Amino acid sequence: MSDELVDDSRSFAPLLARVKTQVDASLAEWLRPRVAAASRISVEVGGVAEALAELALRGGKRMRAALVAAGFAAASSDEPWSPCAPAMMAVELLQAYLLIHDDWMDDDDVRRGGKAVHVLLRERLGTRALGDAAAVLAGDLASGYAQEALFESSVPPERLLRAARAFARIQVEVVTGQLAEMRSEGSSGPGPSVESIHALKTASYTVTGPLLLGANLAGADDARCAELERFGRPLGIAFQLRDDLLGVFGDPSATGKPVWNDIRQGKRTALVAELRGDARAEAMLARVLGKPGAPQADVAALVRMMDESGARARVEARVRELCDEARRALDAMALSSSPSGRGWLAGAVSALGDRSA
Amino acid sequence: MSDELVDDSRSFAPLLARVKTQVDASLAEWLRPRVAAASRISVEVGGVAEALAELALRGGKRMRAALVAAGFAAASSDEPWSPCAPAMMAVELLQAYLLIHDDWMDDDDVRRGGKAVHVLLRERLGTRALGDAAAVLAGDLASGYAQEALFESSVPPERLLRAARAFARIQVEVVTGQLAEMRSEGSSGPGPSVESIHALKTASYTVTGPLLLGANLAGADDARCAELERFGRPLGIAFQLRDDLLGVFGDPSATGKPVWNDIRQGKRTALVAELRGDARAEAMLARVLGKPGAPQADVAALVRMMDESGARARVEARVRELCDEARRALDAMALSSSPSGRGWLAGAVSALGDRSA
Repeated sequence: MSDELVDDSRSFAPLLARVKTQVDASLAEWLRPRVAAASRISVEVGGVAEALAELALRGGKRMRAALVAAGFAAASSDEPWSPCAPAMMAVELLQAYLLIHDDWMDDDDVRRGGKAVHVLLRERLGTRALGDAAAVLAGDLASGYAQEALFESSVPPERLLRAARAFARIQVEVVTGQLAEMRSEGSSGPGPSVESIHALKTASYTVTGPLLLGANLAGADDARCAELERFGRPLGIAFQLRDDLLGVFGDPSATGKPVWNDIRQGKRTALVAELRGDARAEAMLARVLGKPGAPQADVAALVRMMDESGARARVEARVRELCDEARRALDAMALSSSPSGRGWLAGAVSALGDRSA
Repeated sequence: MSDELVDDSRSFAPLLARVKTQVDASLAEWLRPRVAAASRISVEVGGVAEALAELALRGGKRMRAALVAAGFAAASSDEPWSPCAPAMMAVELLQAYLLIHDDWMDDDDVRRGGKAVHVLLRERLGTRALGDAAAVLAGDLASGYAQEALFESSVPPERLLRAARAFARIQVEVVTGQLAEMRSEGSSGPGPSVESIHALKTASYTVTGPLLLGANLAGADDARCAELERFGRPLGIAFQLRDDLLGVFGDPSATGKPVWNDIRQGKRTALVAELRGDARAEAMLARVLGKPGAPQADVAALVRMMDESGARARVEARVRELCDEARRALDAMALSSSPSGRGWLAGAVSALGDRSA
């Protein structure tokens, strides 16, 4: 099994590298005239477009863009994937939109190794209120850009329309998932399950959505789309569970996020859900979860509990289970037309489920 | 001239009434299963979807939806306009999205005679931070819904794609226009002209965008779209100038907005721009513009200055000029195929430029 994982992962890494080179370049070229046009309107409009472009171009693994290519390959024997280029930009602009709003909501100051957009705009505009308003608008602008980019795809209209419907669905699902994470002050009861939140918040926009975008651009039929959903959903949940694990046990220098951030922000991760019901753990959760100022020693004690109680191991096991489910869904797909399609999808399972960053 | 205005206006009012009945009903039906699905996820998700649906269904003149129908009629001899029904919902959902974000940014507590969405969500979720985050997400959800609704249009794919491109453009322009209104703390210089802001912020999303949406759904060619832009741009600017006038001199019970709100919020309206350069007026502007707590007597003095200095009359004259420009653009259009198209467009000029609410 472990050899197979390495092999699979090897097939996704070169795709990711090629996609990243292409998306970074095309996104820079696509955004340049827009930032210039914005700057001609006013310093403020130019500053906002610039901040959004900086975020969109600063790092980003371009994993979602690579999954657009993989989805395309799964439904087409055409090489290369050039009809997907605008859709690849679109998913990355969609991500910029969501990150901008999300960082503002979570009060996260750092993103991709630089200042979050709302932090930058507070500085540029001079007040917190102006900066926050501009950041929400910066996200809205990225959302409009994402749609504009998608519609530049040069594929037959009916294919592009199906892709655009998939794109709208991603947006509804990811926002619904973010809302599903919220609990009213003083609410009781368990709320939605962690995995149902992960399916909406992450699986749709990170895995299934990009795959369906690519597949629809290649003219996939409903049956192929359903197969990709059966593959993408468990993989997407596994991706988010891996994220939950990395947020506590990962190397901050590799993930780019402050360690234990999820705990201090009170995120309802799978690790937290696994601790529920244990009286000692509940007492510690009440002291540190969602408490940005909680003593480091207490957070460390909670992290030890996550490890020693077996919560970590259970989440790791669930990730493997979900990756296996994705692999079985892939095995069941008839991908005869597309040799690279199967390899990339298999590689995605290892790359997304077993990543360390 | 005044008789003609009355006649024109008469032709738009019945369209508006028919459209309102239809849009109110179809939007309620379209949103019902979505709110139900959201409620099955969690109380919080259901509450947000409900708040958004309440706003979308609470009043709203449905003027933008009526302009979709007018744009359709201008490019087609088909009656009725049923292929536009989903696009009509889409523009109204787009407006809900923009209003939700806008009210939060402007700290406006009341909208359409009820609580603004962020006010409602602060109450429902128990804290200001949760309510504000949920309101931004409620807007984002409305944006996703708007796209989903548009894609339900049953017209040939290439027409729908052109409409969707117009829809994306509206979003980029309106957000750019909102940003163009912003000035950094301590910025100097005049910034963009009021009319260039109005063109982006209002003309695109309120007039030209809906017209092009309808026209594209009817299969309009580029020439017809260009004609509609020449018609819609001046009318849209006139609409916003009328808004500027109503915000100071209108009847709050008819406009539904607190009187002098624009002044207290520091909006860069045409009336304010007209006062610039006059030393006495500048001094008063410095005391009350953007000062929510400014004494009522000072605001009243500024309002008197707007009247007595001739600023009000100059803006009124400019509205008439722009309406005439729109009428000339309409006269130049060859609309032989569509008898109702011309009547509705002519009616829109009077209804939008000369409205009192």
